[in-house]
Amino acid sequence: MVPRYSRPEMTAIWSPEARFRIWFEIEAHATEALAELGVVPKSAAKALWDWWATNPAIDVAAIDAIEAVTKHDVIAFLTWVAEQVGDEARFMHQGMTSSDVLDTCLAVQLARASDILLADLDQLLEVLKRRAYEHKLTPTIGRSHGIHAEPVTFGLKLAEAYAEFKRNKERLLAARADIATCAISGAVGTFANIDPRVEQHVADKLGLSVEPVSTQVIPRDRHAMFFATLGVIASSIERLAVEVRHLQRTEVLEAEEYFSPGQKGSSAMPHKRNPVLTENLTGLARMVRSATVPAMENVALWHERDISHSSVERYIGPDATITLDFALARLTGVMDKLLVYPERMLKNLNKMGGLVHSQRVLLALTQAGVSREDSYRLVQRNAMKVWESDGQLSLLELLKADPEVTAALSVQELEDKFDLGYHYKNVDVIFDRVFA
Amino acid sequence: MVPRYSRPEMTAIWSPEARFRIWFEIEAHATEALAELGVVPKSAAKALWDWWATNPAIDVAAIDAIEAVTKHDVIAFLTWVAEQVGDEARFMHQGMTSSDVLDTCLAVQLARASDILLADLDQLLEVLKRRAYEHKLTPTIGRSHGIHAEPVTFGLKLAEAYAEFKRNKERLLAARADIATCAISGAVGTFANIDPRVEQHVADKLGLSVEPVSTQVIPRDRHAMFFATLGVIASSIERLAVEVRHLQRTEVLEAEEYFSPGQKGSSAMPHKRNPVLTENLTGLARMVRSATVPAMENVALWHERDISHSSVERYIGPDATITLDFALARLTGVMDKLLVYPERMLKNLNKMGGLVHSQRVLLALTQAGVSREDSYRLVQRNAMKVWESDGQLSLLELLKADPEVTAALSVQELEDKFDLGYHYKNVDVIFDRVFA
Amino acid sequence: MVPRYSRPEMTAIWSPEARFRIWFEIEAHATEALAELGVVPKSAAKALWDWWATNPAIDVAAIDAIEAVTKHDVIAFLTWVAEQVGDEARFMHQGMTSSDVLDTCLAVQLARASDILLADLDQLLEVLKRRAYEHKLTPTIGRSHGIHAEPVTFGLKLAEAYAEFKRNKERLLAARADIATCAISGAVGTFANIDPRVEQHVADKLGLSVEPVSTQVIPRDRHAMFFATLGVIASSIERLAVEVRHLQRTEVLEAEEYFSPGQKGSSAMPHKRNPVLTENLTGLARMVRSATVPAMENVALWHERDISHSSVERYIGPDATITLDFALARLTGVMDKLLVYPERMLKNLNKMGGLVHSQRVLLALTQAGVSREDSYRLVQRNAMKVWESDGQLSLLELLKADPEVTAALSVQELEDKFDLGYHYKNVDVIFDRVFA
Amino acid sequence: MVPRYSRPEMTAIWSPEARFRIWFEIEAHATEALAELGVVPKSAAKALWDWWATNPAIDVAAIDAIEAVTKHDVIAFLTWVAEQVGDEARFMHQGMTSSDVLDTCLAVQLARASDILLADLDQLLEVLKRRAYEHKLTPTIGRSHGIHAEPVTFGLKLAEAYAEFKRNKERLLAARADIATCAISGAVGTFANIDPRVEQHVADKLGLSVEPVSTQVIPRDRHAMFFATLGVIASSIERLAVEVRHLQRTEVLEAEEYFSPGQKGSSAMPHKRNPVLTENLTGLARMVRSATVPAMENVALWHERDISHSSVERYIGPDATITLDFALARLTGVMDKLLVYPERMLKNLNKMGGLVHSQRVLLALTQAGVSREDSYRLVQRNAMKVWESDGQLSLLELLKADPEVTAALSVQELEDKFDLGYHYKNVDVIFDRVFA
Repeated sequence: MVPRYSRPEMTAIWSPEARFRIWFEIEAHATEALAELGVVPKSAAKALWDWWATNPAIDVAAIDAIEAVTKHDVIAFLTWVAEQVGDEARFMHQGMTSSDVLDTCLAVQLARASDILLADLDQLLEVLKRRAYEHKLTPTIGRSHGIHAEPVTFGLKLAEAYAEFKRNKERLLAARADIATCAISGAVGTFANIDPRVEQHVADKLGLSVEPVSTQVIPRDRHAMFFATLGVIASSIERLAVEVRHLQRTEVLEAEEYFSPGQKGSSAMPHKRNPVLTENLTGLARMVRSATVPAMENVALWHERDISHSSVERYIGPDATITLDFALARLTGVMDKLLVYPERMLKNLNKMGGLVHSQRVLLALTQAGVSREDSYRLVQRNAMKVWESDGQLSLLELLKADPEVTAALSVQELEDKFDLGYHYKNVDVIFDRVFA
Repeated sequence: MVPRYSRPEMTAIWSPEARFRIWFEIEAHATEALAELGVVPKSAAKALWDWWATNPAIDVAAIDAIEAVTKHDVIAFLTWVAEQVGDEARFMHQGMTSSDVLDTCLAVQLARASDILLADLDQLLEVLKRRAYEHKLTPTIGRSHGIHAEPVTFGLKLAEAYAEFKRNKERLLAARADIATCAISGAVGTFANIDPRVEQHVADKLGLSVEPVSTQVIPRDRHAMFFATLGVIASSIERLAVEVRHLQRTEVLEAEEYFSPGQKGSSAMPHKRNPVLTENLTGLARMVRSATVPAMENVALWHERDISHSSVERYIGPDATITLDFALARLTGVMDKLLVYPERMLKNLNKMGGLVHSQRVLLALTQAGVSREDSYRLVQRNAMKVWESDGQLSLLELLKADPEVTAALSVQELEDKFDLGYHYKNVDVIFDRVFA
Repeated sequence: MVPRYSRPEMTAIWSPEARFRIWFEIEAHATEALAELGVVPKSAAKALWDWWATNPAIDVAAIDAIEAVTKHDVIAFLTWVAEQVGDEARFMHQGMTSSDVLDTCLAVQLARASDILLADLDQLLEVLKRRAYEHKLTPTIGRSHGIHAEPVTFGLKLAEAYAEFKRNKERLLAARADIATCAISGAVGTFANIDPRVEQHVADKLGLSVEPVSTQVIPRDRHAMFFATLGVIASSIERLAVEVRHLQRTEVLEAEEYFSPGQKGSSAMPHKRNPVLTENLTGLARMVRSATVPAMENVALWHERDISHSSVERYIGPDATITLDFALARLTGVMDKLLVYPERMLKNLNKMGGLVHSQRVLLALTQAGVSREDSYRLVQRNAMKVWESDGQLSLLELLKADPEVTAALSVQELEDKFDLGYHYKNVDVIFDRVFA
Repeated sequence: MVPRYSRPEMTAIWSPEARFRIWFEIEAHATEALAELGVVPKSAAKALWDWWATNPAIDVAAIDAIEAVTKHDVIAFLTWVAEQVGDEARFMHQGMTSSDVLDTCLAVQLARASDILLADLDQLLEVLKRRAYEHKLTPTIGRSHGIHAEPVTFGLKLAEAYAEFKRNKERLLAARADIATCAISGAVGTFANIDPRVEQHVADKLGLSVEPVSTQVIPRDRHAMFFATLGVIASSIERLAVEVRHLQRTEVLEAEEYFSPGQKGSSAMPHKRNPVLTENLTGLARMVRSATVPAMENVALWHERDISHSSVERYIGPDATITLDFALARLTGVMDKLLVYPERMLKNLNKMGGLVHSQRVLLALTQAGVSREDSYRLVQRNAMKVWESDGQLSLLELLKADPEVTAALSVQELEDKFDLGYHYKNVDVIFDRVFA
């Protein structure tokens, strides 16, 4: 976890205190169920919840001190709770194994992290939608291979991003469901010493599903899928970030990350406004993605489990979720306040003197009866002049002045072919598909 | 693609001929829709389908020869089709861009590949279910950290595998839906020169969804999610393969990959039966997984698209699907014919002279009124003797002979604590959850 | 292996025939050493080499047919050789294990592959050097964050690429040395049945080092390092490819991948020359890189070896080397024939109306006694005008017309500050460092 | 960085204070060189070093507070230093760019980290060597595919590990040299405003090489190679860790991670000593390895640099080095105190009733004139009995009792074939190769 790429709400999920609170809830709910089943006294469960109702502070240092002696984190925690609650606490954890607590806790943490990420996605989607409609018909050049192709609108670019993050939201919902399971099944998952109804009770209380069959642990294919999904989301962040970086290039300058009106550019060079936020997002995407492979390597635990996954998850659990939360929020901010320059977009679009319309003219000539070869020759000879002028000449003007062309197409017909509206007639269709 | 790790049905999807056949279908369906809309003559669509009805062979070499001249694969294909079909073929591809064909074709290929993989998963699930029920109550030792823990059944191990691959099936269904979209939207996705209804028609005919908003290409977050899902499935294969490899170790030998009765072991050493299939699966899993990161790196294409993803997909498209298909089939074969040795499982389970039951005895002593400290001391002193005898002594016999123990627990009570059935009382519950 | 990204020389290394030829050489050299030691008759070695001197064709199909029966590739090969050579062949392979042949063969293949890659790098370096000197003083704008910063030369960009690939050559030489070891040490590496001098002999003959201590296999950390090194080289390819792609963007257009004078641009749009080669290289880099993780996962083989690495290497051995060879050659071609547009570079450099020199003016004002705050204010107010004019106004002209500025600096002094040469005074120093 | 997987010396390298100290040294050395060249007053350099000689505390909070205003870390630092040193400090940083400081600082940090890792490797090598000699002739079974093969010694296993980490040390030395370069070359690497001799001076003082050609940054192929090398070392750690985990399995139990004599095993089960340290190392290896891909993705920065690498390095710089340091130290501790059980090794070796010697008997029969087919039949029929007895019968005893066998080989000759020494005659050769 790198503090500068962290936000407090997500970070809090991974604090020792938060973890201990979840542990307590798991243990207390389990004790409650055990009491209901007559395995332990009802007074035991009551004692736990009564203490909890006092909203006690969790003394992390004290628990750590006990762990330093016992070398066992769950036992240390139980010991500390017993010190607080008193004798009734000895009924806690009956028939359970440490992994029951640890894995169910991780499920709660990842589910909570998912909820924050889902909210992040909602905010991003809202911003993308607003700005997509704002620029629904803002003309800009579409580029394939980085080379001018045909006109699109800036709103269409944002609609694509919206659709992509909408898909990501669906994926994350699925990943959340995958990860949010509860296992209270004992040493090797057989419920030898604990009734399966305890697991069901804890699951219900914590908003989790029951893990249908666990070993000592919740199977790690669930976690692999979860982190892979975060990796896909991060890749979409990279995509939009790279788009902004391209648009802000000095030669393109169709959009810029926000800077306040009074803000100084770098020293004396007012053009030196760097897309540092989206560059940063590009790097953060690499990091979130890097959790995917170790999470997959974690799946093949030996037999009923080994503990090799644990250290991996101590890193990637916090890192991937905290970084992705930060990145989504940063991207939302960037897109919310993105400075968009429609005039520059139009200027760039026209940079090639109307060459982006050459294909339509070609088609029109053919339809007007000129042979395909001749049509090509006519367009090409005028297009080359425009190209060689570096956009100083206008294709439309040259065509109007070419008698072979005007023999086939009237000036009006020619001008019609240079109408941007032609390219935008289906924008509504697309917007309906995306936002309906 | 490595031939020895390939099966013909999946490989066929990726043959040049198969690709060209899909291209034709896309083009012909599109022409049909264009004809319906009055953009091209109905005779054009008819000519295409009439030719197709003759079930013509695809002359890949001829198409390649044209491509060598035109440097453009789709144009080469269209040219060849035009040579076969005649003049009417000139109406094909109107308003479309090459990527419309290429990306929609890839969607069809990946959807077909998914169908094979889903069938593979069904077969694996069937085998796992059958063998799980076969060994539902076959006792075997559960191991955490590779160390004996408490009893499980071999059927439970297989039930876990079943549940895991069931989840993988759900994930693959979702990934298939994600990938199976059709884009016929023209040069930069604006439908400038083609009606969106054409796209809908082609999608319907090919069993695809319409891509709500495309650039020049179908967005690559879909593909990233698809290959990541294959990576998770591969990781589950690795997990089960590693389990078999462990069980076949000389010292464990609770199960073995099948060998025919007459089959010679390696030279004169009859014990030298190597788990080569599951070792191979372990390696194949690494390969399938390795497609995940490049697929994610493919997402951030520049602007409306660059072509950097194409070479990556030429590798991972065939490789990941062919390898996973092979691996699933191989795993199914391994599990179908796995030689299971229940006697050896029981022998290993008892290897520790009954130490796996020590915790139950401890608990019983406590419940019988012995203090926790004394209970621990009594069990521990007998357990140590068993341990030091390397399993030659029996914990039960030693306990029966320990007067301090028998003062608290009768012989019958002691024997009860060594009952495996205690551990298996909830096996049915678990099986119901998994297989119901 | 994807044929279109393959070159014949490298591909040939990985053909079955090439592999069998290396196998023969290993076996024959080993037999020779065994004969020298008196373990087998000298006639045996002679018979093998006599046959080999006839330059016999390797009948791959015949060997495969035998393997279909024996299920063992090395035995199949030995059987086929015995059929050709006759009775003396029975002395082959004495005391060896299959892995001795397989791993030493892989070492030979990777060493040969390295030699091709080293030659590729040499050719690339030669081209980069030539073009670097050609453009040693071709002015172009340096960009940080994609934003204009200060002037560099195009030759400096190429010098950086040269230095980077020079480092890659050193790394590959080290990786080649790492990989090029010979193990002829028997079933578990103890030389129980074969004299270590045999290994030394084979190593000498094949130009390999002796593996100091092998298990059944050559340890896979060597291979992990090798493939990681290829991954780094691929990343450098990506870097240079991305540079070209950026330079070819429509708005930048400072350089282009070569196209022949008569070559048609895409249909009627002459500007549509796409950087498809460097985009392709970007994708190929992702693929070469993707071999790194599985190669690392191959290291932790169980005990004296398992066979999980084998399938991985059947993919990445050919794929990573063939793809990298192709990519290096393609990059060399791109850089060799890259169309460079110095006028456009200069035009872009001046696009900001001289703002790139603003810092020098600022410094000069300070040195002329103007306070830092005033200097900043003076430069800034003129720079802003230039910026707002989108480069139509000239900073130099505005400064000359600003009396507060000219009070401190003469026109000559001002003009001196706009001298590009100032930025290039140390180009020779850098070139000497890189190319000396 | 996860505190529990961190050691203080390595962690300290990455503290803000350590970073600021390195920044100061870079700036002060540069000022010194500038003074020597007459660019700034000698008093400026003196003032800096005089202040430094007072061993001043670095007030991280104060610097952070300034950064909160300036939004620029290097400027914040320079401002704070100026507050401490006074007016002379204004000559610092002349002609330099922030990246000069940041990248050179990272080089120093990675070089220092390398030195710690190299020392870690030395300690590991020392332990491995000691224990290898200790168990140079401790018999143990060699296993391929997890199946008993032929005898090795435990010392040979350790010698292999020694050789592997020796290679890793060489690789790390190369990676250290690769990473340890100094760039003080100004805004885009042209030395426009700073003399290259300043760079040379700073490099000399800090024990770095001069970067021959930088852009705004030190090229990231160097860092990619560095982190890939750490990934290879981590993979070797995994290999040895997995070996220990296998040896500690209940059924194998040839070695165990250390536990103190009085230490309780898990509750009442004395056999429950889990290889948690080596399992942990397996997970840590995955994490160190996961830095490789993002480091490679960092190479292709745009033009003279973008800032996308920075966030990645804020994670992997500390994480990969701190984790690897911890892992090497942990592995050294594990191997230093590893409990080795030679009796159990021998017992396991003999588990198959002498079958590991069957090949030698087979060979001896052949050499004694028995046909290959008969020899095989004789050995096989006895071997099968041993195999079916699960090692209760002894192959040697059965062979001695088989008259067809004793007709060809005397009892003495048979017993000779069961001599372990035969397998160990070349152990000295191997040890000489490895440790000489």
